[in-house]
Amino acid sequence: MVLLASITALAINGVTATPFAPNIGSRDAIESYIPTTAPRENIFAGMSAQETKDITGFLERHMNSTELHEVDYFTNPWLLAPNKSEATAYLDGNGPKPLRYARLMAWAECFGREYMVGPLPVTDSTKFMPLTYVNHGKYELTGRCDDANATRNANTSKRDDIHRRWPTIPYDEEMTWNQEQLPHDHKAPPVAILPEGPRYEFDPEQNYVSWMDFTFFLGHGPAGISLHDIRFKGQRVIYELAMQEALAHYARPDSRETYFSYLDVLSGFTEYNLIPGYDCPSYATYTKAFCLFEFPKDYPMSRHFSYDSYHATKNIAFILRSVSTVANYDYQTTYEFYYDGSIQVLVRASGYIQGSDIVTDDAWDYGFHIRDNLSGGMHDHVLNFKVDLDILGTNNTLFKTEFVPHSHTYPWSEGPVTHTMKVNRSFITNEDQGKINWAPNAAAAYSVVNKDKPNAHGEFPGFRIYPSTGSATHLTVQNSSVFGNLIDWASHHMYVLRRKDTEPVSTSPGTSIAPREALVEFERFFDSESIEQEDIVLYFNLGMHHMPDTYDLPVTLFQGAQSGITLRPQNYQRSHNSISTRQQIHITNEDNEPVTETYGMEPLSGSYNLDKANPPFYPLPEPSF
Amino acid sequence: MVLLASITALAINGVTATPFAPNIGSRDAIESYIPTTAPRENIFAGMSAQETKDITGFLERHMNSTELHEVDYFTNPWLLAPNKSEATAYLDGNGPKPLRYARLMAWAECFGREYMVGPLPVTDSTKFMPLTYVNHGKYELTGRCDDANATRNANTSKRDDIHRRWPTIPYDEEMTWNQEQLPHDHKAPPVAILPEGPRYEFDPEQNYVSWMDFTFFLGHGPAGISLHDIRFKGQRVIYELAMQEALAHYARPDSRETYFSYLDVLSGFTEYNLIPGYDCPSYATYTKAFCLFEFPKDYPMSRHFSYDSYHATKNIAFILRSVSTVANYDYQTTYEFYYDGSIQVLVRASGYIQGSDIVTDDAWDYGFHIRDNLSGGMHDHVLNFKVDLDILGTNNTLFKTEFVPHSHTYPWSEGPVTHTMKVNRSFITNEDQGKINWAPNAAAAYSVVNKDKPNAHGEFPGFRIYPSTGSATHLTVQNSSVFGNLIDWASHHMYVLRRKDTEPVSTSPGTSIAPREALVEFERFFDSESIEQEDIVLYFNLGMHHMPDTYDLPVTLFQGAQSGITLRPQNYQRSHNSISTRQQIHITNEDNEPVTETYGMEPLSGSYNLDKANPPFYPLPEPSF
Repeated sequence: MVLLASITALAINGVTATPFAPNIGSRDAIESYIPTTAPRENIFAGMSAQETKDITGFLERHMNSTELHEVDYFTNPWLLAPNKSEATAYLDGNGPKPLRYARLMAWAECFGREYMVGPLPVTDSTKFMPLTYVNHGKYELTGRCDDANATRNANTSKRDDIHRRWPTIPYDEEMTWNQEQLPHDHKAPPVAILPEGPRYEFDPEQNYVSWMDFTFFLGHGPAGISLHDIRFKGQRVIYELAMQEALAHYARPDSRETYFSYLDVLSGFTEYNLIPGYDCPSYATYTKAFCLFEFPKDYPMSRHFSYDSYHATKNIAFILRSVSTVANYDYQTTYEFYYDGSIQVLVRASGYIQGSDIVTDDAWDYGFHIRDNLSGGMHDHVLNFKVDLDILGTNNTLFKTEFVPHSHTYPWSEGPVTHTMKVNRSFITNEDQGKINWAPNAAAAYSVVNKDKPNAHGEFPGFRIYPSTGSATHLTVQNSSVFGNLIDWASHHMYVLRRKDTEPVSTSPGTSIAPREALVEFERFFDSESIEQEDIVLYFNLGMHHMPDTYDLPVTLFQGAQSGITLRPQNYQRSHNSISTRQQIHITNEDNEPVTETYGMEPLSGSYNLDKANPPFYPLPEPSF
Repeated sequence: MVLLASITALAINGVTATPFAPNIGSRDAIESYIPTTAPRENIFAGMSAQETKDITGFLERHMNSTELHEVDYFTNPWLLAPNKSEATAYLDGNGPKPLRYARLMAWAECFGREYMVGPLPVTDSTKFMPLTYVNHGKYELTGRCDDANATRNANTSKRDDIHRRWPTIPYDEEMTWNQEQLPHDHKAPPVAILPEGPRYEFDPEQNYVSWMDFTFFLGHGPAGISLHDIRFKGQRVIYELAMQEALAHYARPDSRETYFSYLDVLSGFTEYNLIPGYDCPSYATYTKAFCLFEFPKDYPMSRHFSYDSYHATKNIAFILRSVSTVANYDYQTTYEFYYDGSIQVLVRASGYIQGSDIVTDDAWDYGFHIRDNLSGGMHDHVLNFKVDLDILGTNNTLFKTEFVPHSHTYPWSEGPVTHTMKVNRSFITNEDQGKINWAPNAAAAYSVVNKDKPNAHGEFPGFRIYPSTGSATHLTVQNSSVFGNLIDWASHHMYVLRRKDTEPVSTSPGTSIAPREALVEFERFFDSESIEQEDIVLYFNLGMHHMPDTYDLPVTLFQGAQSGITLRPQNYQRSHNSISTRQQIHITNEDNEPVTETYGMEPLSGSYNLDKANPPFYPLPEPSF
């Protein structure tokens, strides 16, 4: 048996020792945020180094048990999410702190099994047991020996032949300055500064964050950073917002890139790295896993001019960002919070493409020919996220409003019929209707609402969800021969389901190791249950269809490879929330003299030490893969 | 006859006296940009105050002519675009400056006619003549007397009844701070500054702009600011990029909002106003019509981390922005230029919604009920733009690449068939296929390419066009009873046509005055011509389906009402263009010591006077409507 502590090279969630500890040594982290103390302990925190070590010791002591004696190695443990009912009771001050458990996979030659270990911290009462209450009771993958035998018996097969060849990453063309003298580019460009210090609160111990009307906890799992108990004006609006998996599905006439497709959560969404001053501004709060900062948008939140007055509101976003390098590719995950109560979730991709040195005629149908011996490999990125919205409680419904053409004879119609439009209102009430694609021409809008709590005008308060940046794509491939049912979550843009403690994730990193069999079978989540005024959950996909051309050389640009959705209040408050900020200006014309109201905000004064606008010095973080 | 100089209230293109003159009096405009001299005169400039005055005098002298003696009033003149062949000859140094003509409409009780006046400046050889070479020879609208009679005869008709009632603008709820004490919001938020001064060149006389690898001229017409002769690395890539019209189409069970729909170019896209420090940063170059500035994006252009090195490139955008207030609504038009050669065109809407005080049961099908006596009025915004791309000359073709599912038996297929995907390549070769909707799931990509000039690898250089921000929508309503064929350009997302001097615009502001008849009949542009390696032109639509909810009170937020497309190089250069900037960092690990390369850029030093980060003092511009 190989214990998890010694197999970091194989580790599935390769958490560094203290992923969330600010780099105090290399910067004055305290200056970058306002310290605070979380109102509760963070029950969503990923496994700490100590916990991982203790679980290792615990398993070591049980390695001769009947269950474990055949096991070759364990994956690193990650948090088994607490049951939502217990978690919310604790968070709301109505219950004790939930017991803490880890989940991990044990791999042997002929099987893979998922276990839970707890309660944590490890004591005499800690146990390990098959994790059967999720995944519809399935905790074991058993097809591996058959696979292994098949592979052994087919050493000369075509499939095996594939794996002797590797995809082409054009690393030989490095990112660098090409010496072009762009006019005036030797002068420093504009830069954002923080003239009066940070305006958000952070508790690095509990990874608790507070900005304006928002508070939330950060969690950590195999798919990177997750957000929990997001409250808006003290009221929970999102119980959980978390990436689930990142698919990169390639296609080629040659078998190589077809099979060199990836479920990148396995490959390392926890391989974080950040370049201060570039990935995030110089004044950001940096930890080893993420950065936090406010940033001014180049356009205002709102504005109006009338005959005798002007009004405008500044647009300042609060941003949580992490960057994960998965071999050749760099994925940036960004969560943006706004004064108006909206949250944008964004994924961007940069780094080196995976191409092919096969530039035969049939390659033409799968990508552009971009260098003498390089064809860009066409691929789809599909990144699956879970968002568990709770609108004034957990009994919610997905609401659809659709703009449709409408031809109707109104009492006032001038002809036999008036050609106009109307809105169709409907609700998604059963999981059978739970697979959703964004409507052509963006005709349909979706929101999670609470039908039991209409506002004074009979409208249902909720949060709308809509694509806001780039494209939001599902997978082109149908019934993929590469992944089979491992990627059932990639077939549509969005899914709505009844939320259950027994269906906590859409996919499991364990699945990638046994690519013929899935532990988490997303398709089984759809079992015709009512989702009308139930605790519902959405899974949505971000992504891009990527056909690299010379614009992707030497590296792909974030600019052209980004995808984002926005969640924003709809009939949720009396007015939009950005009237709550002082960052407004109102100018009126009184006797031809402008009178300016800035709500107590004084003009900036004094001088700013420009040295603070430079990226802070920092040591090269140790490579973590 | 009323001459145009005295009818500013009715003016169609209400150009202020010197729309492009920087407000030198109120700020030190010179400091905000680097002065330059355009290489040619701006042949796309809108009518100057002097030209307008001279044309007025010229028409006055001819008011007794047979053609004009019945005329009630003229619209303000705007530029009759020079013929492209003559214009490009001049711009490329191969021909004389084209003669300059104005176009304008003359309105009488029973007709509207379009005239051209020129050559300009006005001399003895200047003539006026019916403008027959555009609009397929149609220069007169004659249905007006019939309409007028019909209206007079139907004083008690339902239609007339409509017009006695007005839509509801919720002006009573003002934008203001609601006194909420957001934590730390009394501190100044982050702000962008320009530490070493401007890095772009501007010739305010010729409205010529130069930033990094881009140069362009600004023009001015009834639909606001337009861009001309956009060159990238000295090579023309866009001959013309110009808004054509802005439709706001409402629908209600009541007739009011149905007919209170708008073609807003008529209503005043030239009613510019800007709030320094809010609409654009404090350090921007302001004119009465637009602002220019560079701005740092919150994320880098590109980045990569490998075992022993980091690399990243800053993402600095150069932005041209104007804001037009059209009564209750504020439209922001933004053109963003990037180091990588891409250009984003964005429209955002803010200001007060148009609602209805009718909140009956059937109103439910047309909008949300958002105040006791206010129903939000559902409406579609559709904003039409023309973009005339020229890729290595004028002979271009629209190229389509589409990701499609593909099931195929490859030599290496493991089963009977492999389920994967491929790319279908095709060309749009005839105007009959020239009406295009963005594909579901963003499966299809479009680019304008030059098939006659393949690169070394056989791929066609071009610029891709794709939706990049918010939604890009066409009109929901089919065969609108309100506008009829005036809005044929609103039925699809994009159109491709052969470009002709005789079809210079998709719509004409003249049309809105005679809403039963169109001078420019866009549908007639589609006459089955070949568009394979011809001088082609695209018309694309930005827009939103807007169903106001309480989130739109007191005003609509730019955040939730924005739409943008991006044009970016595709197989156009050997690599993407952002390797041309010095704003990069490359860090390598040498003997465990980080070695940082910044390509000659020194860290910032010294102090910055924060007073410069405040919006400059400025007088309230005179109301222009």
